[in-house]
Amino acid sequence: MKIVMISPNYDTRAWEDALWNENPDLEIEVYPEDTDRENTDFVLAWNPPKDVFDKYPNLKVVASMGAGIRHITKNKSLNAEVIVTKIEDEQLIEDLQYFVLTSVLNYCRNIPQYVLQQQQKNWNRVAYKQPKETRIGVLGLGNIGLPVAQILAKNNFKVSGWSNSEKEIESINTFAGEDGLSAFLKDLDVVVCLLPLTDDTEDILNEDLFSKMPKGAYLINVGRGAHLNESDLLEALETEQLSGAALDVFQDEPLPKDHPFWENEKITITPHTASVTNPASVANQITENYLRLKEGKELKHIISRKKGY
Amino acid sequence: MKIVMISPNYDTRAWEDALWNENPDLEIEVYPEDTDRENTDFVLAWNPPKDVFDKYPNLKVVASMGAGIRHITKNKSLNAEVIVTKIEDEQLIEDLQYFVLTSVLNYCRNIPQYVLQQQQKNWNRVAYKQPKETRIGVLGLGNIGLPVAQILAKNNFKVSGWSNSEKEIESINTFAGEDGLSAFLKDLDVVVCLLPLTDDTEDILNEDLFSKMPKGAYLINVGRGAHLNESDLLEALETEQLSGAALDVFQDEPLPKDHPFWENEKITITPHTASVTNPASVANQITENYLRLKEGKELKHIISRKKGY
Ligand SMILES: NC(=O)c1ccc[n+]([C@@H]2O[C@H](COP(=O)([O-])OP(=O)(O)OC[C@H]3O[C@@H](n4cnc5c(N)ncnc54)[C@H](OP(=O)(O)O)[C@@H]3O)[C@@H](O)[C@H]2O)c1
Ligand SMILES: NC(=O)c1ccc[n+]([C@@H]2O[C@H](COP(=O)([O-])OP(=O)(O)OC[C@H]3O[C@@H](n4cnc5c(N)ncnc54)[C@H](OP(=O)(O)O)[C@@H]3O)[C@@H](O)[C@H]2O)c1
Repeated sequence: MKIVMISPNYDTRAWEDALWNENPDLEIEVYPEDTDRENTDFVLAWNPPKDVFDKYPNLKVVASMGAGIRHITKNKSLNAEVIVTKIEDEQLIEDLQYFVLTSVLNYCRNIPQYVLQQQQKNWNRVAYKQPKETRIGVLGLGNIGLPVAQILAKNNFKVSGWSNSEKEIESINTFAGEDGLSAFLKDLDVVVCLLPLTDDTEDILNEDLFSKMPKGAYLINVGRGAHLNESDLLEALETEQLSGAALDVFQDEPLPKDHPFWENEKITITPHTASVTNPASVANQITENYLRLKEGKELKHIISRKKGY
Repeated sequence: MKIVMISPNYDTRAWEDALWNENPDLEIEVYPEDTDRENTDFVLAWNPPKDVFDKYPNLKVVASMGAGIRHITKNKSLNAEVIVTKIEDEQLIEDLQYFVLTSVLNYCRNIPQYVLQQQQKNWNRVAYKQPKETRIGVLGLGNIGLPVAQILAKNNFKVSGWSNSEKEIESINTFAGEDGLSAFLKDLDVVVCLLPLTDDTEDILNEDLFSKMPKGAYLINVGRGAHLNESDLLEALETEQLSGAALDVFQDEPLPKDHPFWENEKITITPHTASVTNPASVANQITENYLRLKEGKELKHIISRKKGY
């Protein structure tokens, strides 16, 4: 009855408490102080170090401590047969819904610009946009992207969405695959990235994608930092192909002090705060999956190693 | 067939165009260049000058160019029998709904604080609030206040409302009158003012009201500048009785350069931009009321001179 946590540079205490709280019989060890690696079959991980899984010859499951799993799947030491699971949390979804709604309304209402104008004591009115005239495209219609698209539609925005497979969703205009991307992008005022990070989606927010949007469109990235080509964004803001961006995730986090994003007034930075997962509210997913493994049942929230999400 | 516009320091051109567009037979004159005041019965006004109505002995109707009417009713030269009408506009209501939703979400998500932190290259996470744990009270449940309360409730906020008369409204906790005010205020995280400006509501956002809210509560004023006692607000921010405020309206507009609000980081200023009325979308209310007057029918959107709203 043991779970090993592998998450260097991470305060694991809240997770330990939450797991014990769910199941007091559970033994929890934290890498690199863990023992008896021969018999470890279940690991809970965030940013596991290079080669670390070589030390666990009988590993069966690696559970991510969050919604993202690429930090695990791209680790070359992970055997192809190991099951990888992610967190799916109602609260996380709701947090993302309201974070994106906030970002989109701030785009419509120019609030970051007014905050900066206030410092100049500048009473300058800027035209606002109404939701019903604002066309938003959501990249990724998964666990999070779909409810985000739905809350935007519920608030009168004109919403489209893009996914791998074709979908039919009420009040949302859907597009699928590489072939559907240009048609999806061509009429948008705002694009919101909620894709998972995979080989196909890494660097997807690049010059080519921006050039398919109408001039002056706006970008919101709440997926992962590696979705965005950061220098292409700076270039697109410079040429006014894009009018601005709200970014919650970055290639390097915390964003380095010398990063040009900090001083760019067209960019609104939030410190990866769209949703902060509360271990207490998701620990039961981990302990339940652990028991399922022991009982030979199918685990929940398994990702496809083949698709990478 | 004549309407006289009395709105000094106001570019009347868009209104003239919009009225002509609705009714090309209509003659429109602009004060002080207007003629034959003896026979003028219908005036369209915004901030009419002191004593001006003395010049119109046969005035029957003064129509406001906006939702506010006190700039008309407090004019001592206005005869008590003159009918005063206001603008009621679906678009104005929708604009106010989304403006308040934006302000409340920014309170929850600390966006103005992040914009300021960005200037310091400061990657500092601040805890956010979820809508379902945020208690918002709307002062005024009228034409605008009620739909604002409803859109907040639809987005999971815990909403209460306060009005003169008692009401029953689905998903909204209602309170009425002076007697209900303390009970209404005592559990709120955020109070939103959408009262009309009257003798009773002038200066209502004052030390006494703030002291009835929980310590650290937040204020949003989208009513009128004269609802707020500006020095009481500064004092309440200083003592941390209030944690912050978002203000769209002010005693003096544009807000004077030397006003202490500009430099207060706990205050988010927008330049009276919650809703900007588009004459083209409301001119038909004016021309319709003009025809109703001519035909002896009851006018629309009449305010009670006795209640003052
Ligand atoms: N900023 C934050 O605080 C925060 C917090 C949590 C999560 N996130 C991020 O949110 C993102 C979404 O997570 P999720 O749980 O919603 O993922 P998910 O449930 O796996 O959904 C993925 C969606 O993206 C689509 N997709 C994947 N690859 C695609 C491709 N190559 N082309 C077109 N569509 C593709 C999928 O299409 P199909 O439906 O056709 O498969 C699916 O609709 C992740 O990047 C996660 O890291 C951010
Ligand atoms: N910031 C902007 O850009 C902007 C734009 C448009 C309008 N506004 C402002 O929005 C405000 C609301 O306009 P509206 O059209 O919704 O007004 P309204 O329809 O006249 O509604 C007034 C509401 O306030 C309540 N009320 C009035 N006096 C009260 C008192 N002494 N105590 C308790 N409740 C009282 C009324 O109660 P009962 O229902 O019981 O009568 C009613 O619910 C106005 O101040 C207007 O100037 C601002």
